[in-house]
Amino acid sequence: MEPHMLTLFLLLIAALLAHAGAGITSSYRRSLLGLSAMPFDADVFRPPPGYNAPEQVHITQGDLTGRAMTVSWVTPHHPGSNVVRYGLAADNLTRFAEGTVRRYAFGGSYQSGHIHHATLSGLDHATVYHYAVGYGYENVRRFSFKTPPAPGPETTIRFGVIGDLGQTAHSNDTLAHYEARPGDAVLFIGDLSYADNHPAHDNRRWDSWARFVERNVAYQPWIWTTGNHEIDFAPEIGETVPFKPFTNRYRTPFRASNSTEPFFYSVKMGPAHVIMLSSYTSYGKYTPQWTWLQDELTTRVDRNVTPWLIICVHSPWYNTNEYHYMEGETMRVQFERWVVDAKADIVFAGHVHSYERTHRVSNVAYDIANGKATPAFNVSAPVYVTIGDGGNIEGLATTFRSPQPDYSAFREASFGHATLEIMNKTHAYYEWHRNQDGVKVVADKAWFTNRYWLPTDTN
Amino acid sequence: MEPHMLTLFLLLIAALLAHAGAGITSSYRRSLLGLSAMPFDADVFRPPPGYNAPEQVHITQGDLTGRAMTVSWVTPHHPGSNVVRYGLAADNLTRFAEGTVRRYAFGGSYQSGHIHHATLSGLDHATVYHYAVGYGYENVRRFSFKTPPAPGPETTIRFGVIGDLGQTAHSNDTLAHYEARPGDAVLFIGDLSYADNHPAHDNRRWDSWARFVERNVAYQPWIWTTGNHEIDFAPEIGETVPFKPFTNRYRTPFRASNSTEPFFYSVKMGPAHVIMLSSYTSYGKYTPQWTWLQDELTTRVDRNVTPWLIICVHSPWYNTNEYHYMEGETMRVQFERWVVDAKADIVFAGHVHSYERTHRVSNVAYDIANGKATPAFNVSAPVYVTIGDGGNIEGLATTFRSPQPDYSAFREASFGHATLEIMNKTHAYYEWHRNQDGVKVVADKAWFTNRYWLPTDTN
Ligand SMILES: [Fe+2]
Ligand SMILES: [Fe+2]
Repeated sequence: MEPHMLTLFLLLIAALLAHAGAGITSSYRRSLLGLSAMPFDADVFRPPPGYNAPEQVHITQGDLTGRAMTVSWVTPHHPGSNVVRYGLAADNLTRFAEGTVRRYAFGGSYQSGHIHHATLSGLDHATVYHYAVGYGYENVRRFSFKTPPAPGPETTIRFGVIGDLGQTAHSNDTLAHYEARPGDAVLFIGDLSYADNHPAHDNRRWDSWARFVERNVAYQPWIWTTGNHEIDFAPEIGETVPFKPFTNRYRTPFRASNSTEPFFYSVKMGPAHVIMLSSYTSYGKYTPQWTWLQDELTTRVDRNVTPWLIICVHSPWYNTNEYHYMEGETMRVQFERWVVDAKADIVFAGHVHSYERTHRVSNVAYDIANGKATPAFNVSAPVYVTIGDGGNIEGLATTFRSPQPDYSAFREASFGHATLEIMNKTHAYYEWHRNQDGVKVVADKAWFTNRYWLPTDTN
Repeated sequence: MEPHMLTLFLLLIAALLAHAGAGITSSYRRSLLGLSAMPFDADVFRPPPGYNAPEQVHITQGDLTGRAMTVSWVTPHHPGSNVVRYGLAADNLTRFAEGTVRRYAFGGSYQSGHIHHATLSGLDHATVYHYAVGYGYENVRRFSFKTPPAPGPETTIRFGVIGDLGQTAHSNDTLAHYEARPGDAVLFIGDLSYADNHPAHDNRRWDSWARFVERNVAYQPWIWTTGNHEIDFAPEIGETVPFKPFTNRYRTPFRASNSTEPFFYSVKMGPAHVIMLSSYTSYGKYTPQWTWLQDELTTRVDRNVTPWLIICVHSPWYNTNEYHYMEGETMRVQFERWVVDAKADIVFAGHVHSYERTHRVSNVAYDIANGKATPAFNVSAPVYVTIGDGGNIEGLATTFRSPQPDYSAFREASFGHATLEIMNKTHAYYEWHRNQDGVKVVADKAWFTNRYWLPTDTN
């Protein structure tokens, strides 16, 4: 080898080593106790007192911008009343909304309670509303929520980001830590109850989960992404329609964003345009999800109104854990180019029960014969966060690929949740909160700059 | 550069050039006349005489192995009778099957005729049956079919392979050429009527197409793969349920192969196990299609019984036409490894309106950070055939990528169809028939050797 080639070679090696050094694999490991589901008689699952009292109360945004809120609840014994009363003061619930009620059976042995959904509309933005459910048998339960600010570049919002929560003691820690300083809304990244990990997809676990999280989701909207544990595909017990429990129990405002299915849709909340995608609904070219996302990104995102573009999808496109490695590859191949072209700021994923944050990378040069298939730094690309560490029954995914790939910035096999506080149209403060032996600890944090308004900033 | 490096470099270039020379891009170009749909009053669309006479008669296999056949037809004015009479002689239809009848509306202006489906069961293999429909108003129409041989390694079968047919004069040529020497059954690779290319997805084009192909499909089973033109997703006219016309009009025996949806399933016909996949139904990990295909390939394919494993899917995984380039990539990423592991013999795709056949290649070494993403010769891999050249209204896709990628063996932008004649458990003779200015011409042919029984043969 001639001297200048040797020099080049050594420079290349040095550059590779330096780059590889940029990723952090946290050495923190927590003890793995309490991974079974909390027992049905645990305190967190206790039904409210009173005959046929509404339980499992939860709310989600009911329209595109937050001038509507959908309230859902379950009455165990009788349908009771479909009415939600609401108003600006707890003692003056002057308005009411009438909803629907339904039941569903699952697998021959489970029969749900009476599931109610009612949408409160005509709300003002950035306003506290009080509401009550449980008329009919007069076991009325009262809650309140605050609507998000109207979409606009000068607004702020603070999101909690929780994925793969389940219903173990760790799940309870995660929720408690979020409640210690709750945000305005939760972006839930899929995999709610893990009922399907129980015999015959024991749907009582859907009920217990909803009772468990009521303490937060009755007071602020959780925006739902669907995960694989929502599929509940169980042909062995005659259940062949995907998402049956989820679609009976949960509402998403998909029609408000021109979607035709509840699994892919968007909401605008203050400074953020948030898109929920479904890893488990078809996304091949020409399918409804593909068609919808193309229209959404090219015609309905307006960064002048909502500076921040956030995407939530259950199966990660970039992750370096051995578990579920590359499961999101098929959707990455389909949609990554659009997301980079749209200058999305952050893609939140779950599914892998471990925490990870990437650098801004993309891998979109590949054509099937050119071999150009290596993720590379791209200032227009989003940061990919995997937040599937809510604390569910399946435990942590503790084996990371080694050496840490270039695109991985920080990774740690612990439970926790994230928060994203959008400060203005250019800056957002992001934290990952590890459940460190019962104490909330900030283990990863970053300032994200907006890809549209500060497109060349490398934060 | 030192001499031995230069030598290496030159050898590499020479090898690349030699390899690239293996692919053929046919220079044949046909004139592009007659790409509009044939007019509704064309002879091929003429309804049968007689008031309320059954029309659009078509059959498909009604169970896993061919001891049942499903007959479908439409009565235009009244439901009429749901009965199919059948038997071993045309003048002695001693058995009968009773079916169902349904109608559907589309887009507010279209109302279908009365669509009947009846399954004739308890048939013997390799036997000719006569059948008749149209009782009630006594405009009886008579047809016949032959059941396939029982699955077994010593049987033979001859398949027609047709994709993207449509209803132009070219479509008529393609069908006529196939009829000139018809096989035992047609593997239809998706995109039937192209009704969705007409205003408001004019569903009368579904009717005219079914009248057009009746002359063949009433006499031999066509096995249906769904294409993008079957989605008929039209939210602008209120139609948001994918595949609505197709699922009302066509039946697939999906339950017989343990599938839960009509878009992915398999049939066994003599020496062949044929799997139909859906490019437009979810296939992410954990989805019904993913789960079904995994079970199918690992537990239900038995090459001792059905030596040949054939896969049909609309969107090609390997194709070198500029049009629709890499649209099948997302599904290739998900399923290619399974298909190679299963030693599938052939993957038939459509969608690209041009003909192509690949060498045996695979591209399964890639992990997201290793850059190993180049298709390479693999003796265990299937041959990929794109046969989306039935002759539809959209015309030919005439621009191939240049230079011809290594994995492409033969490609030509002409209309036509293919036939596959399975001779025994080791050899099958394959031909592509170009519609050369109205005359059927064999433009590509090959002997395929079986991947399971002659796994190291490079044919
Ligand atoms: Fe998951
Ligand atoms: Fe197509």
